[in-house]
Amino acid sequence: MIASPQRLQQVLKSLDLDLTPWSGSGCTSRAPRDGANLAELRTHSLQEADAMLDAAHAAWLRWRSTPAPVRGELVRRLGQTLRQHKAALGELVSLEAGKITSEGLGEVQEMIDICDFAVGLSRQLHGLTIASERPGHRMMETWHPVGVVGIISAFNFPVAVWSWNSALALVCGNAVLWKPSEKTPLTAIACQHLLQRTLADFEAEQPGTVPPGLSQLLIGGRELGEWLAAQPRVPVVSATGSTRMGRDVAVRVAQRLGRSILELGGNNAMIVTPSADLELAARAITFSAVGTAGQRCTSLRRLIVHESVIEPLTRRLEAIYSSIAVGDPLADGTLVGPLIDRAAFDAMQASLDQARAEGGTVTGGERACRGLGDDAWYVRPALVRMSAQSGVMRHETFAPILYVLPYSGDVDAAIALQNDVPQGLSSAIFTGGLREAEVFLSPSGSDCGIANVNIGTSGAEIGGAFGGEKDTGGGRESGSDAWKGYMRRATNTINYSGALPLAQGVRFDV
Amino acid sequence: MIASPQRLQQVLKSLDLDLTPWSGSGCTSRAPRDGANLAELRTHSLQEADAMLDAAHAAWLRWRSTPAPVRGELVRRLGQTLRQHKAALGELVSLEAGKITSEGLGEVQEMIDICDFAVGLSRQLHGLTIASERPGHRMMETWHPVGVVGIISAFNFPVAVWSWNSALALVCGNAVLWKPSEKTPLTAIACQHLLQRTLADFEAEQPGTVPPGLSQLLIGGRELGEWLAAQPRVPVVSATGSTRMGRDVAVRVAQRLGRSILELGGNNAMIVTPSADLELAARAITFSAVGTAGQRCTSLRRLIVHESVIEPLTRRLEAIYSSIAVGDPLADGTLVGPLIDRAAFDAMQASLDQARAEGGTVTGGERACRGLGDDAWYVRPALVRMSAQSGVMRHETFAPILYVLPYSGDVDAAIALQNDVPQGLSSAIFTGGLREAEVFLSPSGSDCGIANVNIGTSGAEIGGAFGGEKDTGGGRESGSDAWKGYMRRATNTINYSGALPLAQGVRFDV
Amino acid sequence: MIASPQRLQQVLKSLDLDLTPWSGSGCTSRAPRDGANLAELRTHSLQEADAMLDAAHAAWLRWRSTPAPVRGELVRRLGQTLRQHKAALGELVSLEAGKITSEGLGEVQEMIDICDFAVGLSRQLHGLTIASERPGHRMMETWHPVGVVGIISAFNFPVAVWSWNSALALVCGNAVLWKPSEKTPLTAIACQHLLQRTLADFEAEQPGTVPPGLSQLLIGGRELGEWLAAQPRVPVVSATGSTRMGRDVAVRVAQRLGRSILELGGNNAMIVTPSADLELAARAITFSAVGTAGQRCTSLRRLIVHESVIEPLTRRLEAIYSSIAVGDPLADGTLVGPLIDRAAFDAMQASLDQARAEGGTVTGGERACRGLGDDAWYVRPALVRMSAQSGVMRHETFAPILYVLPYSGDVDAAIALQNDVPQGLSSAIFTGGLREAEVFLSPSGSDCGIANVNIGTSGAEIGGAFGGEKDTGGGRESGSDAWKGYMRRATNTINYSGALPLAQGVRFDV
Amino acid sequence: MIASPQRLQQVLKSLDLDLTPWSGSGCTSRAPRDGANLAELRTHSLQEADAMLDAAHAAWLRWRSTPAPVRGELVRRLGQTLRQHKAALGELVSLEAGKITSEGLGEVQEMIDICDFAVGLSRQLHGLTIASERPGHRMMETWHPVGVVGIISAFNFPVAVWSWNSALALVCGNAVLWKPSEKTPLTAIACQHLLQRTLADFEAEQPGTVPPGLSQLLIGGRELGEWLAAQPRVPVVSATGSTRMGRDVAVRVAQRLGRSILELGGNNAMIVTPSADLELAARAITFSAVGTAGQRCTSLRRLIVHESVIEPLTRRLEAIYSSIAVGDPLADGTLVGPLIDRAAFDAMQASLDQARAEGGTVTGGERACRGLGDDAWYVRPALVRMSAQSGVMRHETFAPILYVLPYSGDVDAAIALQNDVPQGLSSAIFTGGLREAEVFLSPSGSDCGIANVNIGTSGAEIGGAFGGEKDTGGGRESGSDAWKGYMRRATNTINYSGALPLAQGVRFDV
Repeated sequence: MIASPQRLQQVLKSLDLDLTPWSGSGCTSRAPRDGANLAELRTHSLQEADAMLDAAHAAWLRWRSTPAPVRGELVRRLGQTLRQHKAALGELVSLEAGKITSEGLGEVQEMIDICDFAVGLSRQLHGLTIASERPGHRMMETWHPVGVVGIISAFNFPVAVWSWNSALALVCGNAVLWKPSEKTPLTAIACQHLLQRTLADFEAEQPGTVPPGLSQLLIGGRELGEWLAAQPRVPVVSATGSTRMGRDVAVRVAQRLGRSILELGGNNAMIVTPSADLELAARAITFSAVGTAGQRCTSLRRLIVHESVIEPLTRRLEAIYSSIAVGDPLADGTLVGPLIDRAAFDAMQASLDQARAEGGTVTGGERACRGLGDDAWYVRPALVRMSAQSGVMRHETFAPILYVLPYSGDVDAAIALQNDVPQGLSSAIFTGGLREAEVFLSPSGSDCGIANVNIGTSGAEIGGAFGGEKDTGGGRESGSDAWKGYMRRATNTINYSGALPLAQGVRFDV
Repeated sequence: MIASPQRLQQVLKSLDLDLTPWSGSGCTSRAPRDGANLAELRTHSLQEADAMLDAAHAAWLRWRSTPAPVRGELVRRLGQTLRQHKAALGELVSLEAGKITSEGLGEVQEMIDICDFAVGLSRQLHGLTIASERPGHRMMETWHPVGVVGIISAFNFPVAVWSWNSALALVCGNAVLWKPSEKTPLTAIACQHLLQRTLADFEAEQPGTVPPGLSQLLIGGRELGEWLAAQPRVPVVSATGSTRMGRDVAVRVAQRLGRSILELGGNNAMIVTPSADLELAARAITFSAVGTAGQRCTSLRRLIVHESVIEPLTRRLEAIYSSIAVGDPLADGTLVGPLIDRAAFDAMQASLDQARAEGGTVTGGERACRGLGDDAWYVRPALVRMSAQSGVMRHETFAPILYVLPYSGDVDAAIALQNDVPQGLSSAIFTGGLREAEVFLSPSGSDCGIANVNIGTSGAEIGGAFGGEKDTGGGRESGSDAWKGYMRRATNTINYSGALPLAQGVRFDV
Repeated sequence: MIASPQRLQQVLKSLDLDLTPWSGSGCTSRAPRDGANLAELRTHSLQEADAMLDAAHAAWLRWRSTPAPVRGELVRRLGQTLRQHKAALGELVSLEAGKITSEGLGEVQEMIDICDFAVGLSRQLHGLTIASERPGHRMMETWHPVGVVGIISAFNFPVAVWSWNSALALVCGNAVLWKPSEKTPLTAIACQHLLQRTLADFEAEQPGTVPPGLSQLLIGGRELGEWLAAQPRVPVVSATGSTRMGRDVAVRVAQRLGRSILELGGNNAMIVTPSADLELAARAITFSAVGTAGQRCTSLRRLIVHESVIEPLTRRLEAIYSSIAVGDPLADGTLVGPLIDRAAFDAMQASLDQARAEGGTVTGGERACRGLGDDAWYVRPALVRMSAQSGVMRHETFAPILYVLPYSGDVDAAIALQNDVPQGLSSAIFTGGLREAEVFLSPSGSDCGIANVNIGTSGAEIGGAFGGEKDTGGGRESGSDAWKGYMRRATNTINYSGALPLAQGVRFDV
Repeated sequence: MIASPQRLQQVLKSLDLDLTPWSGSGCTSRAPRDGANLAELRTHSLQEADAMLDAAHAAWLRWRSTPAPVRGELVRRLGQTLRQHKAALGELVSLEAGKITSEGLGEVQEMIDICDFAVGLSRQLHGLTIASERPGHRMMETWHPVGVVGIISAFNFPVAVWSWNSALALVCGNAVLWKPSEKTPLTAIACQHLLQRTLADFEAEQPGTVPPGLSQLLIGGRELGEWLAAQPRVPVVSATGSTRMGRDVAVRVAQRLGRSILELGGNNAMIVTPSADLELAARAITFSAVGTAGQRCTSLRRLIVHESVIEPLTRRLEAIYSSIAVGDPLADGTLVGPLIDRAAFDAMQASLDQARAEGGTVTGGERACRGLGDDAWYVRPALVRMSAQSGVMRHETFAPILYVLPYSGDVDAAIALQNDVPQGLSSAIFTGGLREAEVFLSPSGSDCGIANVNIGTSGAEIGGAFGGEKDTGGGRESGSDAWKGYMRRATNTINYSGALPLAQGVRFDV
């Protein structure tokens, strides 16, 4: 296994990225795969952040009047840049976030996809024309750039979340200030680097198009996130992370009557009914539960299985789990890489202990691959048989723990169990039956923002809106009309009649 | 002038409304037109509120599965009920809120309009079907009822705001808990009465359709609003009122990661350019500035006039102002009724004093119609000539004060003045020129949620989304896709392929 | 049984409709239930038609500038009028078209529903605002009234089809010229009467609102339909009827580059898979196949049943069929009324003969209820077991004939059979399985405009677009964005920049 | 001046295009710039066309089930291919269609733009979910691939029109059969070549993705167009060309109840009001009237100028016209290249003669640049002062003739003149006044599909729907929801309730 610092050098070279300007102290990038330190990086002060915001605001004032298709052309070029550096950026994701190669590449592909999508939006950003009740009046609704968009992202999708927000924000005419997780500064720097290069090339071709400060990066910790949430000149803050963090951001943004787009914790369940294709389900469960070492916000955490099929399904899962390759995420064949750090490992063990205390039977969950590094925290994914939905199951543990719970009766009973947690991100049902599927998708079905049939809870396409309800925070990103979250709406009435009729027939003659 | 209590009796009779069940102490309804007390009403305790919420939640569980067109039929019937009682309800608005007859009727008309609109929505509530990147997969986005919707409304639109929210909320499949302003409990009780009668008739015709507790009324003060904002079982809180109140609601709702729809203060401006039709402008200005005695959230407060036309326009306004009929809102010919109460009068005088201190020249503003009652607070509407946009102009005073400010140069200078306040609700430009109008409507134009051309700032139609930016709170109600604020969105992917391809081309073979 | 002419008198009285102005010769209204003549009516000459078109065009010139919500208010009032006269109009439908009471009332309910829907549209008629690629440019798309809309309707939905078209056309700002089937002139006259009364009342309340000639009725035969199709001042012709008629209309309209909305023949199939709920299916099949005596364009004509369940299902259907009450449509308990006339009876018998010749086994189909009148053509609904989809099954016979055909293999085989006819209106599948349902709804599934799961082929809701593909003509009416068929679209670009940049970066400097 | 055949060789080399497989007889490609023959090409027989259609239909059966984003990826790659060959393809357009360099490149840019736009659509193709009136029912509307799309294009946009149609058709899941103008076969072959290369590369990377026969080219004359219009397996025919051709296509397609998308003749007018910026107008007029030598369907043909400004404007235009560089379209500085052929020249002269006979005063219009080739038909653009809108002005002559007509009174008078022609494609107004602009855009304003303010009639952006009304044919291509023209719509109702309620409350109990 080639040590991470060495692989990093190759990646940086491939990206033509010089870390010197970013070097310093305050933020350490480490590689979960071997625990090696990758870089020491300088954190930004609040004064620097203020200056960045000044620049971002000034950039917005120009960018908002740049035609949207021109803004789209920038994002198209960003997509091209990402295509060119997909391998290197994907590997950097693997190095810094610990994802397996396929997932690292998949994350970059998602960046590319959202760029394509945003380019299409750039000739739409559709408002409405609306019939007016008054003669000689015209109504319409237009969407305008909103200002500087703040992005707070988490370690587990260190690049895709930025791209979801940035591609839309830029096409929508906004400037961007990004505070990535302090656990993944290098991937953020790489993104910023690739965007800056794209911006520079575009500016060189079309001078005067790209304002300086259009997209900037804030390296640092919680205090920067808090600062960002509190700035009145940041009308929209998009924050991905824990429910605790999100609640804090939400309150700070609310205090200044700003807008939050929150993508917080999930506690995602899958229901398996008697008519399900169990083999298909087993594969979907495994990917959803152990993919990204269970560190996706959409990771499957609760499996609610009809009592008539729980035994064969659980045994099948145990067999699969026992053979899953845990190891170096950059090695061929690995399906489960390391946890992000020791704290994650400790939290996982604590949850497993609590599960046992609440009557659960745990298979797996032990540390693995110690040889890969003392500070590399690999685990065997854990299956926990539960007889009731106890306390531990109501909390999200960011680790590959899957609680398996039986239900009896019809699908409504399973749905009730599924919905009985504070979070509301993703959910799935496996069934062969039309009626069970439809009930699950109905108003009285899953209460989550994502509800799937015969696929797992994770792995959303970018064409749909992504996000969830309840403690997940209510925000939506990515596809559908999520772009409206990055714009402000104006309702316009134009009177060309020469008279002054009032709405609702009010008379007021002076 | 017939005393208000007497007129109230006729209104109650016409509405067939018996106040006995609501009578008690804690909340006094008074008539601004003569200062008479109309009724003493019982306030609800927090325990009663809890019980109401239990009932509302239970009602929602049934209502959400009632087909939307059936819900629409209920709202259609509500519209019919309102048509039948338009005159009486309009008069009650005049009695309790002090509006002139035409405005009271106009407010009821707005209720009727939103019912019609909501009925149409009830066969739409359109989500999207979306192209999926995976073979044998189908994607769609569906909108589901969200739960109990809390409504907090203000005295100045004591019935319309409720109807905007309730008509949509009910059609969207939600239950409603309404806390009206403690200054206008009777109009709220009348609305609740008319809705309950409609519900009862509907239930009688189609038994089992209407769950008890579908719409309930909370009489009381601030503590009930605070309670409502904090309830996790109230996923959406729609609050209309001051920025101070809205900020408080926003924070409470954010702490539990709920959703706020905020309609807060406006500080609305109109720009008059040299090419404007000054006579048309003068009439629009007058209605916007003095209508509802300047107590609309969309009332015109700042007039920004090109220096070349400011003199003739201001003189024309002074002439109009001097002849405006201030008086009993129920009398024919009255254009300006009373302020809501003494506090409003005091606030107005304080603002006028501050304006004078900041260099303004005030015309009007003095108390009027003392003969109508010692506790009836009529004023002459005030015109204040200002030379610069000083502090008093950056705050909303809920009274008929219009600051007149000159601008020089082109329309961009006027727009800069307009946008340079914390609020962002409504705005208007009067111009004969295409380019000025378009600049005003462009991304670099007005930063308000409402931007009109050649009509005033107030009097929106219900077909557009209503609401504003910045300290106005960002919420949208009424038309366009404002209904989405009352529903939750689910992104669904259905796999019918028999295989399990992953998005973004990720491979994960177990 | 009360004779039809007597019942007619009561209906006319209830509608306050005097037929005198319409009486004359050329068009006979008869009652299929007893063969009695109801009225002799005067047909319009082409000269009269020309004059009507002059008036309609003049009406449109005024109506197009009437605000859409005002137009919506007219349609709302029409809905109220229809509610008031639902019973009488429904009975008239039963008298003249032979529908059973429940279906006659259901047809009027559909009229009411589309009015409600159209009222909602009247504050929408949404076009789009669109992002422009040029600085200082604004783009939008607006929808405008298109002109006089010609409606050609058929006997089997003598009033609903008119209302679908008229409610939308009127809200969209158009005038209407209606040529109903010569078999159902009285229902048309009744609709026109109710609309005229509504128009008159509205005009009385709001003088100057309703232009004369806004909606007119053409009584007569094919030559009037041909005339209508050929008029350049009738930009849109909506025609419902046979494929032969539709093709003729389509060509005439195409010759003048007009727009056709065609609702032509269906040859609708249902697939029943092994996992279907057979009892539910049997009921849905029966309603779809024998409802309206098989004379709906969406009537079920072909039943494609998996070989494993065809026997029990067919036996169940035979049992149901044997007990179905055929008789006077106005009598309680009747499910199947008469065919429209002798020609329909003859066509049915010819098809049954052909089916036998092609190997089919016919149950039922014989004449019934001879006692109700010599010229009253009642039949027992026919079930025809077929072994292959032969020629007779590829044609639509407007009568209660249901061909039952087995399929083997998977659902794709059944879909192939279903799609292998020239028509493409409605289709259904009964299945308990998710995958079969989804395949049926997929791009490679049913090729019809309507594709249902676990409900029959007939009885569409008005919220969706109604119409079909292939020989069904491709038109869409009723819900979704079918209203666009009644308007013209304008793409607008407004340059407020002061410069003149060209799209696609073209340079052209003079 | 380098002779066209020589330049062609370079272009072909740059495109890596070998004409051998296409060579033969029946269709001659010539270069309008010097009259040189470029190539002799083989025309396809109807038998070959039949075989192509077989292949296209088979391709569609596979392509329709390919996920739309994968189809979008193909179109994205086509856009990349076009970017790479923009210069060469643009020059080929100049060679074969006679466009100046900037316009040739602009046309390719439009191809690129529509590809970007179509890629965005590929993750949308949005249908609707719709609220159902029945409990336990779900409604939605989905859009499916429609089949083989036939494209008939004209010489004047030899490549862009194909791309508008093909990019959308391919993303929408259809196969394409293209019959280009027999005057521009080489550009068509070049497009087909670039697409085939793209398809081959894509298939090489992702085997099994691209079905053979997905896009095919039919070289030949009118009989192939007639054949294409008559094929039932070509459900959609998109035809661009003369009104005569379009009418013929429309009737043939109507006879088989197919769908036409017609882009036919325009007779486009601009109104210039007294408040217009005359210098800006003069430049816009010149580009619109003489660009592409007046051979755009959106070319400006009628100028309707207020009498108060007609003299200065006309004089300014005469000055500009006198200095316009007519000549080799590939030479720097040329603004007006040749007419397409002698027939175009003759038609222009005939129209000018007619104009003179109808009282017009002609400036320009004479043949120019004879030295560039005996069969090269250059002309000076013609300005014709007219006093009334006589017969010649009601017909489209595909040449740079601009009729200048005065109007008096207000803008309504000008609009009446503008609308008083059979065609309805594009229109524009130049005005500084808001009211005139709004009236022009209102329901009683321009009756064209395109209505612009302060820009010319030509040069539409691809984000809006393109097309016109009346004799222009009513079709829409390019942006907005024009993609729906390339799909079929299915309205789906899914019953998961276990019961069988009927719509409109119909009862039918068996």
